[in-house]
Amino acid sequence: MTTRMRIKDLVITPIAFRDPPLLNADGVHEPWALRSIVQLVTEDGVTGLGETFGDTLHLERLAALRPHLTGLSVYALGELYEKAATLFDHAGGAISSFDLGRVHAAVEVACLDVQGKLADRPVSDLLGGAVRDSVPYSAYLFYKWAGHPDAEPDEWGAALDPEGVVAQARRMIDLYGFGSIKLKGGVFPPDQEIAAIHALREAFPDHPLRLDPNTAWTHETSLEVARALDGVLEYLEDPTGGIPGMARVAAASPLPLATNMCVVAFDHIPPAVAQGAVQVVLGDHHYWGGLTRTRHLGTLCDTFGLGMSMHSNSHLGISLAAMTHLAAATPNLTYACDTHYPWSAQDDVVRPGALTFVDGAIPVPTGPGLGVELDEDVLARLHENYLTCGLRKRDDTGYMRRVNPDFEAGLPRW
Amino acid sequence: MTTRMRIKDLVITPIAFRDPPLLNADGVHEPWALRSIVQLVTEDGVTGLGETFGDTLHLERLAALRPHLTGLSVYALGELYEKAATLFDHAGGAISSFDLGRVHAAVEVACLDVQGKLADRPVSDLLGGAVRDSVPYSAYLFYKWAGHPDAEPDEWGAALDPEGVVAQARRMIDLYGFGSIKLKGGVFPPDQEIAAIHALREAFPDHPLRLDPNTAWTHETSLEVARALDGVLEYLEDPTGGIPGMARVAAASPLPLATNMCVVAFDHIPPAVAQGAVQVVLGDHHYWGGLTRTRHLGTLCDTFGLGMSMHSNSHLGISLAAMTHLAAATPNLTYACDTHYPWSAQDDVVRPGALTFVDGAIPVPTGPGLGVELDEDVLARLHENYLTCGLRKRDDTGYMRRVNPDFEAGLPRW
Repeated sequence: MTTRMRIKDLVITPIAFRDPPLLNADGVHEPWALRSIVQLVTEDGVTGLGETFGDTLHLERLAALRPHLTGLSVYALGELYEKAATLFDHAGGAISSFDLGRVHAAVEVACLDVQGKLADRPVSDLLGGAVRDSVPYSAYLFYKWAGHPDAEPDEWGAALDPEGVVAQARRMIDLYGFGSIKLKGGVFPPDQEIAAIHALREAFPDHPLRLDPNTAWTHETSLEVARALDGVLEYLEDPTGGIPGMARVAAASPLPLATNMCVVAFDHIPPAVAQGAVQVVLGDHHYWGGLTRTRHLGTLCDTFGLGMSMHSNSHLGISLAAMTHLAAATPNLTYACDTHYPWSAQDDVVRPGALTFVDGAIPVPTGPGLGVELDEDVLARLHENYLTCGLRKRDDTGYMRRVNPDFEAGLPRW
Repeated sequence: MTTRMRIKDLVITPIAFRDPPLLNADGVHEPWALRSIVQLVTEDGVTGLGETFGDTLHLERLAALRPHLTGLSVYALGELYEKAATLFDHAGGAISSFDLGRVHAAVEVACLDVQGKLADRPVSDLLGGAVRDSVPYSAYLFYKWAGHPDAEPDEWGAALDPEGVVAQARRMIDLYGFGSIKLKGGVFPPDQEIAAIHALREAFPDHPLRLDPNTAWTHETSLEVARALDGVLEYLEDPTGGIPGMARVAAASPLPLATNMCVVAFDHIPPAVAQGAVQVVLGDHHYWGGLTRTRHLGTLCDTFGLGMSMHSNSHLGISLAAMTHLAAATPNLTYACDTHYPWSAQDDVVRPGALTFVDGAIPVPTGPGLGVELDEDVLARLHENYLTCGLRKRDDTGYMRRVNPDFEAGLPRW
């Protein structure tokens, strides 16, 4: 094996970027979103990029894995997975498949970036080739405050009722051209969120719509909302918690159910299939062990007649590039993907130009690897944010309670 | 896209190689086995190899697909599959998933060979990287006549009873070092095949054993054999036909059931899983749409707790190389793979040296692509065989009936 492809080091840089006060069932986004940027360096100095979570536990796991990467080939993804599984004692149950997938994915994407650079091919080509030239994303709407407490209102302003939601959608679609709309729900009583969906339908008669209350509802409420929005939503996402709960709703729901909560690792699929719990899986390579394993998930969903869409957490351009390559190379990923990018684009670590929305879609990067380059100055600034912001783990509930001490976090809420 | 990776042409050469009179439930192998060799040439003259079936219908399909390949990237595997699916009207049911997989695989392997050559990496690296340095195969035993009718006995001689089977096993293991043994059954009444297995167990106390009667048995007979060989076989392969039939046997069998007959395409998996029909899937990249899709099958089997092994038809070294790369890169393919190679090795189109059994296993080729080179002289000779042998479709039953007019082909037989 030549030194071109041998891993020399993995540089992990935790970062924090500004995040608006986006509301959800757990509370509200804090002023800083945590993330980490991964730079995998081969012995010959080829660098592969990755973007992953920034919580302390995840960073500690990556740091523990780091010395075991030295000398490994960037092609040895199966070996990488086994190394991580052994290190964290997956067989003994010390780490869940989900958390193992998170760790593996952080390194795997960077390996694929190097593989693409070595072969002078885009990552989509390493995943079976793009079957679409650009990947449609959805306008990801949030109820939100005008600004963080004690801060000036942000450029998006408040969205706390149907009018605010429609105004936010209009701004986001004007800016990016999205052809689908997703509303993060679970914030207000279901009737208000149903009203917001109806307002969106009126304002955007041809946009597919989705609603995601993050398991804020009981079985009965889930069915009431599903019936109220039959013919209006393309799918209802995680109305209630757990595979059995989702299965109970699915059995009577006129709407397909989607999830990125009860099915987030391969071992969740057999019970979900057996119980008919979901009709659409929102894949996420950060969750599912990387791009290749999520590509496998695509074949698995196709096999079982499950629709495929894509989940998003707060992220920057390296993740957006990876998501785009994956979605482009997954034929049955036919729903517009979710992305938080409009909420964080101003702080991107990726040099401008590689990722631009055209009619709500990202043209698949055609350069080698992920096709994006790191802006070291921005990285340094975002790392400084991390060092000074004081946050080490996402805590939407704690933040909400500091603002609103009466906030009850228990779910289902309605 | 550069011309390096654009397909210029696909050269399809049907061949025939000598095949001994191997017996099975359908009849007996004819004196010639049909196959075809695929040479995919890029605009820059890089050649990728593939080996596939040689029956006329398959050759006609490949010929029909050929003009649609011009200009396609060797990385565009998703597009290739869609092109073939459209051309043969898979959506309209004009071609089964199984036959579409056969066609796609023939080209996909050659594309991966080119990809590996362009990247200077072995195909195993394109499938996630080898997790084992060599791939164990099983000694694939057949009941057989001493020679074809009106011909001299071949070097293997007859195997028509337990002693003959053990002698064949001993010769094959002496030659290749195999550590597992598979007997093709369905030829003699079950008691005789049970006796052969017991004789193998006595002669080779530590070799895992398998028996494959190719659906020759009823449900009742299958269970009788499974009970008689409980603790002796590692799995029982396709004792009876169909997913419901296999499920009925599996429900009471003390032995795990394996298949390469009732689950041979992705759309067979949901009913097989729902009914608990099989415990081990014998993957075969020639069936399952190629190496990448069979790698996806590996993840799928792992997800549903299905064991993975590998099926073989009569084949030469290009297929053996592809099978080896795939098995090396599929972590949960933990059973020794089947191979007919000892029965056809004397006619291999691959130049010697790349594929050598060491203790029953093939060290994974480390050269670029599949790591094998075509011997053009042998190819010409085998193509001449094809032109003169008169066979255009495998017909084990017809051949048996010409020798033994009373042969009843109907299954189950016992």
